[in-house]
Amino acid sequence: MSRKFVYLFGGGSAEGNASMKDLLGGKGANLAEMANLGIPVPPGFTISTEVCTYYYKNKSYPEGLEEQVLNALKKVEEMVNKKFGDPENPLLVSVRSGARVSMPGMMDTVLNLGINDETVEGLAKLTNNPRFAWDSYRRFIQMFGNVVMGIDSSKFEHILNELKKEKGAKVDTDLTAEDLKELVNRYKKFVREEKGEDFPQDPYKQLWMAINAVFESWNNERAIAYRRMHQIPDDWGTAVNIVAMVYGNMGDDSATGVAFTRDPATGKKKFFGEFLINAQGEDVVAGIRTPQAITLEDSRKWAEEHGISEEERKSKYPSLEEYMPEVYKELVEVYKKLEKHYRDMQDLEFTIERGKLWMLQTRTGKRTGFAAVNIAIDMVDEGLITPEEAILRIEGDHLTQLMNPIFDPEDKKKAKSENRIFAKGLPAGPGAATGKVVFFAEDAEEWAARGEKVILVREETSPEDIKGMNSAEGILTARGGMTSHAAVVARGMGKTCIVGCGALEIDYEKREMKAKDTIIKEGDWISIDGNTGEVIKGQLKVIPSEVVQVLIEGTLKPEDAPVYQKFAKLMKWADDFRKLGVRTNADTPKDSAVARKFGAEGIGLCRTEHMFFEGERIQAVREMILAEDLEGRKKALAKILPMQREDFIGIFKAMAGFPVTIRLLDPPLHEFLPHTDEEIKELADEMGITFDDLKNKVESLKEMNPMLGHRGCRLGISYPEITEMQTRAILEAAIEVKKEGIEVEPEIMVPLVGHYKELELQKEVIEKTAKEVFEEKGEEVDYLIGTMIELPRAALTADEIAQTAQFFSFGTNDLTQTTFGLSRDDAGKFLPEYIEKGIYTVDPFVAIDQKGLGELIKIGVEKGRSTNPNLKIGICGEHGGEPSSVKFCHRTGFNYVSCSPYRVPIARLAAAQAAIEEKKK
Amino acid sequence: MSRKFVYLFGGGSAEGNASMKDLLGGKGANLAEMANLGIPVPPGFTISTEVCTYYYKNKSYPEGLEEQVLNALKKVEEMVNKKFGDPENPLLVSVRSGARVSMPGMMDTVLNLGINDETVEGLAKLTNNPRFAWDSYRRFIQMFGNVVMGIDSSKFEHILNELKKEKGAKVDTDLTAEDLKELVNRYKKFVREEKGEDFPQDPYKQLWMAINAVFESWNNERAIAYRRMHQIPDDWGTAVNIVAMVYGNMGDDSATGVAFTRDPATGKKKFFGEFLINAQGEDVVAGIRTPQAITLEDSRKWAEEHGISEEERKSKYPSLEEYMPEVYKELVEVYKKLEKHYRDMQDLEFTIERGKLWMLQTRTGKRTGFAAVNIAIDMVDEGLITPEEAILRIEGDHLTQLMNPIFDPEDKKKAKSENRIFAKGLPAGPGAATGKVVFFAEDAEEWAARGEKVILVREETSPEDIKGMNSAEGILTARGGMTSHAAVVARGMGKTCIVGCGALEIDYEKREMKAKDTIIKEGDWISIDGNTGEVIKGQLKVIPSEVVQVLIEGTLKPEDAPVYQKFAKLMKWADDFRKLGVRTNADTPKDSAVARKFGAEGIGLCRTEHMFFEGERIQAVREMILAEDLEGRKKALAKILPMQREDFIGIFKAMAGFPVTIRLLDPPLHEFLPHTDEEIKELADEMGITFDDLKNKVESLKEMNPMLGHRGCRLGISYPEITEMQTRAILEAAIEVKKEGIEVEPEIMVPLVGHYKELELQKEVIEKTAKEVFEEKGEEVDYLIGTMIELPRAALTADEIAQTAQFFSFGTNDLTQTTFGLSRDDAGKFLPEYIEKGIYTVDPFVAIDQKGLGELIKIGVEKGRSTNPNLKIGICGEHGGEPSSVKFCHRTGFNYVSCSPYRVPIARLAAAQAAIEEKKK
Repeated sequence: MSRKFVYLFGGGSAEGNASMKDLLGGKGANLAEMANLGIPVPPGFTISTEVCTYYYKNKSYPEGLEEQVLNALKKVEEMVNKKFGDPENPLLVSVRSGARVSMPGMMDTVLNLGINDETVEGLAKLTNNPRFAWDSYRRFIQMFGNVVMGIDSSKFEHILNELKKEKGAKVDTDLTAEDLKELVNRYKKFVREEKGEDFPQDPYKQLWMAINAVFESWNNERAIAYRRMHQIPDDWGTAVNIVAMVYGNMGDDSATGVAFTRDPATGKKKFFGEFLINAQGEDVVAGIRTPQAITLEDSRKWAEEHGISEEERKSKYPSLEEYMPEVYKELVEVYKKLEKHYRDMQDLEFTIERGKLWMLQTRTGKRTGFAAVNIAIDMVDEGLITPEEAILRIEGDHLTQLMNPIFDPEDKKKAKSENRIFAKGLPAGPGAATGKVVFFAEDAEEWAARGEKVILVREETSPEDIKGMNSAEGILTARGGMTSHAAVVARGMGKTCIVGCGALEIDYEKREMKAKDTIIKEGDWISIDGNTGEVIKGQLKVIPSEVVQVLIEGTLKPEDAPVYQKFAKLMKWADDFRKLGVRTNADTPKDSAVARKFGAEGIGLCRTEHMFFEGERIQAVREMILAEDLEGRKKALAKILPMQREDFIGIFKAMAGFPVTIRLLDPPLHEFLPHTDEEIKELADEMGITFDDLKNKVESLKEMNPMLGHRGCRLGISYPEITEMQTRAILEAAIEVKKEGIEVEPEIMVPLVGHYKELELQKEVIEKTAKEVFEEKGEEVDYLIGTMIELPRAALTADEIAQTAQFFSFGTNDLTQTTFGLSRDDAGKFLPEYIEKGIYTVDPFVAIDQKGLGELIKIGVEKGRSTNPNLKIGICGEHGGEPSSVKFCHRTGFNYVSCSPYRVPIARLAAAQAAIEEKKK
Repeated sequence: MSRKFVYLFGGGSAEGNASMKDLLGGKGANLAEMANLGIPVPPGFTISTEVCTYYYKNKSYPEGLEEQVLNALKKVEEMVNKKFGDPENPLLVSVRSGARVSMPGMMDTVLNLGINDETVEGLAKLTNNPRFAWDSYRRFIQMFGNVVMGIDSSKFEHILNELKKEKGAKVDTDLTAEDLKELVNRYKKFVREEKGEDFPQDPYKQLWMAINAVFESWNNERAIAYRRMHQIPDDWGTAVNIVAMVYGNMGDDSATGVAFTRDPATGKKKFFGEFLINAQGEDVVAGIRTPQAITLEDSRKWAEEHGISEEERKSKYPSLEEYMPEVYKELVEVYKKLEKHYRDMQDLEFTIERGKLWMLQTRTGKRTGFAAVNIAIDMVDEGLITPEEAILRIEGDHLTQLMNPIFDPEDKKKAKSENRIFAKGLPAGPGAATGKVVFFAEDAEEWAARGEKVILVREETSPEDIKGMNSAEGILTARGGMTSHAAVVARGMGKTCIVGCGALEIDYEKREMKAKDTIIKEGDWISIDGNTGEVIKGQLKVIPSEVVQVLIEGTLKPEDAPVYQKFAKLMKWADDFRKLGVRTNADTPKDSAVARKFGAEGIGLCRTEHMFFEGERIQAVREMILAEDLEGRKKALAKILPMQREDFIGIFKAMAGFPVTIRLLDPPLHEFLPHTDEEIKELADEMGITFDDLKNKVESLKEMNPMLGHRGCRLGISYPEITEMQTRAILEAAIEVKKEGIEVEPEIMVPLVGHYKELELQKEVIEKTAKEVFEEKGEEVDYLIGTMIELPRAALTADEIAQTAQFFSFGTNDLTQTTFGLSRDDAGKFLPEYIEKGIYTVDPFVAIDQKGLGELIKIGVEKGRSTNPNLKIGICGEHGGEPSSVKFCHRTGFNYVSCSPYRVPIARLAAAQAAIEEKKK
């Protein structure tokens, strides 16, 4: 007996269910689940993702698959009482991809499969609709020819257009059944010419070719690009769903549509969707025709916005609620059932065949950050989910959207008064984007690569455009609805997006667009408001989001800020659940204050060298570096001391009552010196030394690999007087702040330790200095001494180091560099290629590489705690604000993470998620 | 009850024994052992090294120590029937350091302790020798004042010289007891002035001050420097030995001396030593007076060499054999007993007090490489030790000495005929050294640092000179014997050394020396022959050693080469015992051939890029780099292909029947391009491109941290065509060689892999190319595909990588760089300081850092074998020829090590030692 590869569904039951997404893909699992729920789905079966994995490993199918497919097909035939390939009563099927997670439009689909010269006649007779039958046949040849046989679509279009010309037909529907029959003949002839073989007539041959094509499409270019962008592993594979066809294009009593159980842009609790009469499913998603609203309310609103009278609307663009009230009622029941069952907002696809509703898909709907937060909180209020579940449903990017800037209302008012708002479309992706117009995805990529901000403007977008969409600040399309490709993909990317902006006339040739009297050329600035759908000429001023206005700027009251209120509620929950501390990386009192307002519970990394560059300090720093001897260095350091002390006073005050980790000088000294001859000359004059002397000094400090050079604690070992000065500045500041009655918790952090003796030596210097300062001031403060763990050797010998350290802070930026042997400064040349080729699924500088780096961190934590069980452990690399990395830190037993101020809420959220996930286990 | 800190010995028994070196130090353990053996040692006791460790941790002594010391002292009093501090019958003691391993002269010693204004009188009465008593007192004040109280020695010398002038005394012995009494008074007054307190009169106070000083001397500058040089951990600490004084300076029936049971320079089996009549021990070691030979044979030889008549010799410089025949007989018995007991050559110290022999020390004698090999093999022949033990006694440096160059006999003959051999001394350290003369240790350091070869010439050396000695090619002293400081230290360092070259008159002021008519100034070239003791004017030609002449040059027959014969015997034993394979790093057929002769069993690393630089190839390589597209690159690569193929053919032939691991291109491409404007211009002209274009290209390839940049397999990922060409060259060469009937085992090694997918991608390219080549040639060869493990991530994810790799080769050079975050190119600036400060006891680029890097390697080996149990594992970093690293590789389960050709014998030896040590466990 071979393994089970094929899972049936339909007729009120299924072999699979919603929990089997890994095996059946999202689409297959949910079709099965709907069947189990008694919701009408056309019968069919799913070939599991294991077959895809097997196929890529062995370039063949596993034994038993063919038999299982044929058996399943037989069952489907029985359920619909049709026969695959039967000339009298033919069963046609769709063949669709379906991965674990939705990858909209990225992989291939074939509809109407099973049609051929014989069955087309049967279909015509059976439906009593020869035109429908021949139209289906010609569509099939076109789709199969393109997707499976690899023939350019436009060539089919060309033949179609020729025929239309000959027949004097304006639109496709002008062609008669006879015309379409002729078209099918021409198509077949053309395929023979192109491929040197006949278009396959055997339905089984068609089926296997299509299955093969779907599996192959897992590795097409756009699917790979999508996976990279969403960090989907290459080895997941896709399932294949083979489903009995239902026809939304059988006449005016047929239709097809998509719907969301709540508004995916705002999260508002209202059923929402679009449909097309007499059409097949792909037509809605592709956004080629502007579809009609499902609810009467939406339909009226739409008409109003487009200046269409109620009469015209009713006759030409009725809502489904009016057009097919029974079907609408059934659909409402289905959506309610599904939302309640899945306990989340659903994205539905349906087809109405001659008045009968069929559900083709349900999945958890993609949503904007605003919608995600609103839906999660509403569902808690509705008692549908718990606060824990609400927390788990919010992604870091969702929060980012809430915190991202919006347009300045004043500036927008001005634009309005100047009549610069020249078009309006559907607000598919909220946000405020401003940029230069480009009309091609490739241009968006290119322009963005050279640092330009661009808005990508298209008639409609297609899967080929996703890289360009990702490069753009925002996306604007002339066609398509809220569920079109552009809308779905942009929301997924968190991009500002407006779709269906029908007023736009785009001229790709001239690279310009027109709306009313306004002409916008490539390169002109426009601004798009993803919250309202407004398209504005020129560059609009962007201001802080509600959250930032309330929290940071204090320019808005919480009671006037509904978005902020939701944000605050969520953060409150997050703080209730999380166990991991969240600190911030901040070098100034200002950043410290911002971070506090975002909820930071201390500073995890204060880089002292940033202070060295400010104002006149750099002069003293250079004096120190260029000093001939200890005496000279000490003199220069004495000048820096009061300045550093002042900085620390400010930071300690801003972080009153919270710990502040201050890292001692880290970068190699040559970073503080000028490098061009001109600058060197200038500095030499200033310092009263010769150009040659200075040039020599600069040269002598240069390093082949500065990342691996004389930096970090190596400086403190060579020049203990620097450590002395910094310790003095920190502790003098701490004492001064303490004397003002403010609680202060300095943590002195020694960077780049690779050997415990380095830390011991630096600790001696720090303790000696501390004793001096305490004696001089007649006052003491508690302080800790710890170290960065940013070299592999430090993690590997953490048991030794932890005997001297009171805390560890993993410097994962540097640790990634050394663990991977990858310089962040240089990797730009090949890292993109590595992501492209799937070597890394995610940039290791963005998210902690849990397999490699993670292993090293675990070793460091375990060894460290083995000799010092009370060791405080944190992270201060940029990974500290990246959700998957924060969760890793929680699981690995960290005490806190530290990240940039604006990432603090994201880290709080991720920390809460980690705690909840742990509890669930 | 407190721990035991104090161990008694004397009177035929002891509380310790020779196996307790860690606790009692070498000196203490061996004194105990001698006591147990019934050999006459003065009674005493040892304070353990644990007390030293405790002292450095707590800056105080452990509880119970004082009581134990006083109890032990009481026992010693009983044994010698004297009382410490008793004015009538005073016991005096010596207080000496003694670490686990001998650190000659590095730490402090105090003799005659317990003497004061009262006991000196008792001593005078008791010995009936007031002069001796007062001389001992003034010596004690001088030594204690210097060592314990920190007063400059020369100040005491000054007072002594003043007094001598006043009294008209020429030498010390001209001073009477009264004079010495006066001297003691002046010394005491001087001490009071210097330190503001009286010289301590309380013997117990003296004792504790001296104990403290000895512990403190563990961390004096020269002891630290010595530890660095010999990789002795700082935390071992020293023991303190407190021993009842015996006096070699009680008159002409008293003496002191040192001896070796075999010749430490040549290994010849003959008793050998020197003594001084009426002297204290330190006088011999310091080499201030030229001592007399112990045996009659040596005495006669010495006289002959110095042109001294038999009569004069007999009266003025008799041997101990003649002077004290009974004592000599006893000494011979003792040395035989000790050598037999310890089963190794011993280095002895003894004192004769009024005709009675006392042994003060025995330890395993330091020896030259020649001596080490000879003694080890002789002792096997004598049945004293097994071949395994012989192997364990030879160090890598010993072998190096055997393989090191010697003077060209022709050139030396010429020098002789030209009368350029201007002096002769004692051949204390064998070898052939030539260099410029310097007279100060600091100069030796400085000159060597700037690349000069120097010979350090001194009247005598002292512990302060060791850094200079280490920097010099060779050491030449005018005074001192075979057991003087210079001799012992130089032998330990493996330096060529001549001592006791009495003909030299050194003028430090003028910085010149004279011998007969020859004047040599600072900076003049001289050559010293450490095998004969000859000092030659000018730079003598150096030629290969016997071993190299026989093995590599073929210019000497084995039967004419006794050193080679011993070498070969040792290597035979090593090969019998070892389990680890030994390969070589070689890039050319020539190096491969040399390595084979040294016993390499294949190539562990063949760097293909070295070939890229040769001759016209660099031109094609540059074309490849500068090519605009794939086409251009392929064209250039096609030019390189036949050249690479030829190289591989040569190497495969030289390594017939052995595996050859070839690493694919590794360095970043910019290394192949010129960098100065001038060179760029030249190349641009050559290549027919503009200067600006080429300059831009060069700039664009520059990297901030090339070590972490676009190199290794990252090149092969970006440009698979390079991997293709190299694979083709390797396999085409292999097929050609195979067709000639020669066995060939290519192993293709992918460098700098950090992620298994990198290796997978490169493997695909290699296998595809191999298939093509095999088809084209109609012939196949077996080959392996493996990878370097040279990034921490590779070791951490070795389980994944091993599924694609057939072998791992640890590239410990790069792995050290990334694990330590230390660039080899830049570390020169601070690594010496790190060694100096004791952060690293040994340069991590020289020996594998077992604690940190070793941990990572172990992880890599364990993980690798966990998914691929048959994984072949080797090392190809430079550590592969360093003994401690080779042993680590054995213990960690490596299959082989690979090192440079001349290190192969050392690796074979170390591998054998590792196997024997394992078996012993």
